[in-house]
Amino acid sequence: MGTVTIQLSCLRHIRKLCFSCPWEGRRLFKMLLQFHHETQRPLDPGCLLPQDAERSADQPGRAVVDFPVAAVLPAGGSGERMGLTTPKQFCSIFNRPLISYTIQAFERLPWIVMVVVVVAKDNHDLMLNIVRKFNHTKVKVVHGGTTRHRSIYNGLQAFSDSTDSSTPKPKVVIIHDAVRPFVEEDLLLKITLAAKEQGASGAIRPLVSTVIATTSESYLDHSLERAKYRASEMPQGFLYDIIFQAYQRCSEFDLEFGTECLHLALQYCGTNARLIEGPPTLWKVTYKRDLAAAEAIIKETLSVSACIIAEAEEEAVELAKTLQKNLNMMETDVIPCGKESNVQYLSKTRNFIHISASASSSLWVLEMVKCFEDIDHARLYPVVIVWVQLSMTKQSADSQETDEFMALASEVKQRNVLLYGIKIDHSKELEQWQRSLERLGQITLVLIRDRNMALTGQMLHV
Amino acid sequence: MGTVTIQLSCLRHIRKLCFSCPWEGRRLFKMLLQFHHETQRPLDPGCLLPQDAERSADQPGRAVVDFPVAAVLPAGGSGERMGLTTPKQFCSIFNRPLISYTIQAFERLPWIVMVVVVVAKDNHDLMLNIVRKFNHTKVKVVHGGTTRHRSIYNGLQAFSDSTDSSTPKPKVVIIHDAVRPFVEEDLLLKITLAAKEQGASGAIRPLVSTVIATTSESYLDHSLERAKYRASEMPQGFLYDIIFQAYQRCSEFDLEFGTECLHLALQYCGTNARLIEGPPTLWKVTYKRDLAAAEAIIKETLSVSACIIAEAEEEAVELAKTLQKNLNMMETDVIPCGKESNVQYLSKTRNFIHISASASSSLWVLEMVKCFEDIDHARLYPVVIVWVQLSMTKQSADSQETDEFMALASEVKQRNVLLYGIKIDHSKELEQWQRSLERLGQITLVLIRDRNMALTGQMLHV
Repeated sequence: MGTVTIQLSCLRHIRKLCFSCPWEGRRLFKMLLQFHHETQRPLDPGCLLPQDAERSADQPGRAVVDFPVAAVLPAGGSGERMGLTTPKQFCSIFNRPLISYTIQAFERLPWIVMVVVVVAKDNHDLMLNIVRKFNHTKVKVVHGGTTRHRSIYNGLQAFSDSTDSSTPKPKVVIIHDAVRPFVEEDLLLKITLAAKEQGASGAIRPLVSTVIATTSESYLDHSLERAKYRASEMPQGFLYDIIFQAYQRCSEFDLEFGTECLHLALQYCGTNARLIEGPPTLWKVTYKRDLAAAEAIIKETLSVSACIIAEAEEEAVELAKTLQKNLNMMETDVIPCGKESNVQYLSKTRNFIHISASASSSLWVLEMVKCFEDIDHARLYPVVIVWVQLSMTKQSADSQETDEFMALASEVKQRNVLLYGIKIDHSKELEQWQRSLERLGQITLVLIRDRNMALTGQMLHV
Repeated sequence: MGTVTIQLSCLRHIRKLCFSCPWEGRRLFKMLLQFHHETQRPLDPGCLLPQDAERSADQPGRAVVDFPVAAVLPAGGSGERMGLTTPKQFCSIFNRPLISYTIQAFERLPWIVMVVVVVAKDNHDLMLNIVRKFNHTKVKVVHGGTTRHRSIYNGLQAFSDSTDSSTPKPKVVIIHDAVRPFVEEDLLLKITLAAKEQGASGAIRPLVSTVIATTSESYLDHSLERAKYRASEMPQGFLYDIIFQAYQRCSEFDLEFGTECLHLALQYCGTNARLIEGPPTLWKVTYKRDLAAAEAIIKETLSVSACIIAEAEEEAVELAKTLQKNLNMMETDVIPCGKESNVQYLSKTRNFIHISASASSSLWVLEMVKCFEDIDHARLYPVVIVWVQLSMTKQSADSQETDEFMALASEVKQRNVLLYGIKIDHSKELEQWQRSLERLGQITLVLIRDRNMALTGQMLHV
């Protein structure tokens, strides 16, 4: 932590230099910022949880897992419990189906070689479209069976087909629910290593409610002692040969009514699973309200950082620094506006706040969007641009400008870039100016956090 | 259902009459609308779930429950699991702590006479402030113990104090978690009646995960057969004498480490609880993500209906009708603007869309807010006013108008009224007009659904 502090204070110093002397300090500033970012936690494109990003950055998995690992995601469910017509794994958050988030949680790990997604026949084309649209490169789509166990079995069989060289048999296979998108590398690694060593492993969680045995007439029979029991969750890991054999040996009754893969490995292969305590984020998106919870988690993760880009005008730079202070719940960097510095920052955040005293936004915005496209930055999550227009003289909004801004926003929304405008009138009256600044911070934060699709193109006032 | 259909079509006819001849048809229109509303499901102020509202309207509880019923809400928890510094029951949704929602779920039922809330000593003043601010009239605040069972015991003891006439001993007492705000009357009634009959009753839910027994070395021992077990949830109901006796008899170990009231009633009074299947909305707000889920449920419930108020101009009426069509996911009524009709609609919804071709909003808005205050309409939930300004000639926004609107919004926000503006330019070009109308619908819906505090006072454009 000590080194980081020194870096940061050093950075601030350099930053000051840059602003007072924009062209000379910039190269040094860029180098240092890059260094700063590489030592800080980066927001990995497919990574939702910061701890996870940290691990991904070190890539511990690649060092430890020197054997092939694949995943099977049964996604054949109908989602009736949700009270929705769309099966829950295909419900979208930011126009992207939940299952794509889950796939990405696996695909981003270099030590996972393949993800087999098992879907109902009716959803085969839908699934292929998702794979294409979100550029999933490790996925194989397989048809499901009538029950969860039959679907998993189908998924496992994809690897046993020796004629298909695209799906070589893995050493360890991880089975996971399509509707648990927030699984972390750390846990996947533990599950994988325990499966390799023990033959089977599974994530568990403490029970949230007391479990009771009921009589057939719906009376309390007895309650279980909570401490001795756990909820069995996903992911679970297995030596491929063991779980495949268990499925080959198990009964029709198991395939029809069973729920627990760990149980099959124990009963048919004598393998006692190693149990590993997982985090609360393992929870399964089951009800409609869970979608709101998942969306909230994704929104929060996407809003941890922002890049404030200030035009050269002194007032813009000043405003940028004040805004940075007011956005203290986010990690922000203030950088001067300039083409060449863009790309480096792009991969660090999905939130950009541009501050300028000039009215026209379109050139800069289109240039940014071009950069996003070059690095495929907005494919998985929407990128936000907040265009802050500092106006030195109080003036009415030009209706043509408003229309142009909305047209621009509508154009870039096609590429998953959400453009919002905020107009702030400079005021000499201190109290009013303070109020405007405060509101600027609040609204900027709300726009970034909410990523509301319907409000793009609006020019708000503070 | 047949009668409702006839009413509605009849209503539409009358509505047409009213608009073509605003002064003559209005009285008939008002009478019919009132009738229509009273036979449809009303949005009870404290009621979050529509089914529940329906029941509350019929007040089945009052007819069936002819004995005193009280509730105890243990709310002493620290909320560590949530990853928040504020205990979860005091976390706010729309500036109102979760516990107030839960209290209201009981307080609104006429057959529940008293709600004892048990809080940690440190939170006593906080709790009293909540009771005052949200005008809870049936609440008694009691100090908690060091464990959940001790807190419940303290709550029960409040009724045994014969010197305090404000808390007479109830026949049945319902124990419920402060962090399960969505409990419905239907279930409370079932729990109460079963407790009266059987001595004890409890809500149950199917298990969401397989429950497994673990060995002391964290290996799988065996998995339970899901069908035989249930998760024990809240609320639970008891004959007061039974549960109080159970607490008096139970051991220190029970008070310290026990989790299950049903278990105490069984062990110390030989009372086998009757178990009643509850709905998924019974879930307990445990993690930070659950707050987002709870907020989503509240938002959805607050957005089921809206009242569109059109000024007399022909274009405004036309626009109102089109907007009504575009808001087809909500129950909307279009009514003409007029003081006398306001109050009747006020109690039916918390969303008002005013459509006018004139620029000044303040008089009408302040009049509405006055009406809200008269019926205490915005105490428990924020009320939304969307001010739609139809402009017949394309013109730039006047910066003074913008400032005035923002000042007005800021003033009424103090009274929990969220004011937003939308400016729509009338266009003779059909395609553009259609696009504007579509956007008007989308943005209106988003404003009503989100109830975003930071965006009040904004004049949006479509």
